[in-house]
Amino acid sequence: MSRVRFKDPAGSIRIGELKDGMIEFGNRTYRFEDIDILPPTRPTKLVCIGLNYQDHAEETGRDIPDRPKLFLKPPNTLAGHGDTIQLLKDKERIDHEAELGVVIDRQCKSVSKENAMDFVMGFTCVNDLSNRDDQRQEQNWVRGKAFDNAAPVGPVIVDSDKVPKDAEIKAEVNGEIKQKSSIDELVFSIPELIEEISSYLTLERGDIISTGTPSGVGPIEDGDKVTISIEGIGSLVNHFKK
Amino acid sequence: MSRVRFKDPAGSIRIGELKDGMIEFGNRTYRFEDIDILPPTRPTKLVCIGLNYQDHAEETGRDIPDRPKLFLKPPNTLAGHGDTIQLLKDKERIDHEAELGVVIDRQCKSVSKENAMDFVMGFTCVNDLSNRDDQRQEQNWVRGKAFDNAAPVGPVIVDSDKVPKDAEIKAEVNGEIKQKSSIDELVFSIPELIEEISSYLTLERGDIISTGTPSGVGPIEDGDKVTISIEGIGSLVNHFKK
Repeated sequence: MSRVRFKDPAGSIRIGELKDGMIEFGNRTYRFEDIDILPPTRPTKLVCIGLNYQDHAEETGRDIPDRPKLFLKPPNTLAGHGDTIQLLKDKERIDHEAELGVVIDRQCKSVSKENAMDFVMGFTCVNDLSNRDDQRQEQNWVRGKAFDNAAPVGPVIVDSDKVPKDAEIKAEVNGEIKQKSSIDELVFSIPELIEEISSYLTLERGDIISTGTPSGVGPIEDGDKVTISIEGIGSLVNHFKK
Repeated sequence: MSRVRFKDPAGSIRIGELKDGMIEFGNRTYRFEDIDILPPTRPTKLVCIGLNYQDHAEETGRDIPDRPKLFLKPPNTLAGHGDTIQLLKDKERIDHEAELGVVIDRQCKSVSKENAMDFVMGFTCVNDLSNRDDQRQEQNWVRGKAFDNAAPVGPVIVDSDKVPKDAEIKAEVNGEIKQKSSIDELVFSIPELIEEISSYLTLERGDIISTGTPSGVGPIEDGDKVTISIEGIGSLVNHFKK
């Protein structure tokens, strides 16, 4: 199923099911495009992975690491599908990064990779927005990665078995394809990531592991429309302004 | 006032007032030492500061930065006063770091240093536990700083004007003083930290800014009792086991 979290016309926050462009909740049905779509989960944290596609490691001139490179995005980074995001002022370069997001189903710790998928609610799209001006100067990427709305997520959470193993992932800016790869190009697999992260950090229901980005990252400018699409999930669209 | 969050004998979570060793909530009174003390707030994030005391920068062989060095601890890092914390297995060195924690009173963004104290609920003690084995190898300190229970906090939140400007801060291990300084030795002041952080990240009610540690950080071993004390606030005590 395809879960969508939204604000209904009366202002209530609901989790419905998306079917053929319609959102169903209880005995009500809404057109997807008429409704205020919210981030599909309320994570306590996003745990993000750096350099997890070979080609992106190459474009940054760095080696594939021997274990996953981790960084954090706190809840202030969330944004939803359709939201207009204001870019940080006075920064030269804020980049898009198309990523597959793995949503955790229930609290877990020290999970083995063999059992890891039992703890996955489903998959979603993430745009791991990156403020390169500050990221380059920081030991820990807080100004660089944790600024407000630096993690648009959505529009839906899809059961992991409904997403092809080699699903295409892409980023488009104003309709032009900038990133295009397949999620089977991940260096560290989803079960490996869950095993490694959960050996240090308890994961909570709704937490998101953002699994890294392929090559082709690039700047977002005032007025741009950025679309992150993953086959089997859908498209996360945001507009940006200065 | 001195706020304490606790679990009462019936299992309800309450926020009471600590007066002369007694916790008051409604028409009930409990002895502080009889009660399960919880972390005094439920932050969405802890924003921590590196190298914010001159002497600690010197002991690590690094220069004072030209702007605050930031890193993050997510909610899985919380622990409360009196809790026994299990140390990560197979790590050579987990260190204590005594820190003054600033608790945010209400949601805020882009706060000027002139107004910053209006957004402070009060002060508490933080032990910024640090897993040096991994921290040394990481770009972003996730395994190093964000592991479960890496942020004991408490026992209380005290109004900022009840804490002397030059309050003594210290860490003791099994009663032996390891760190001792004064909070007026902070390189970047509390208002400066709030201004800088909130220019990038919205702060939420209950979020904690942990303001950095003085010199004298050192390892915690199996069986140790670590006490973080700040004049005007009190003492945060935890036991550790392998």
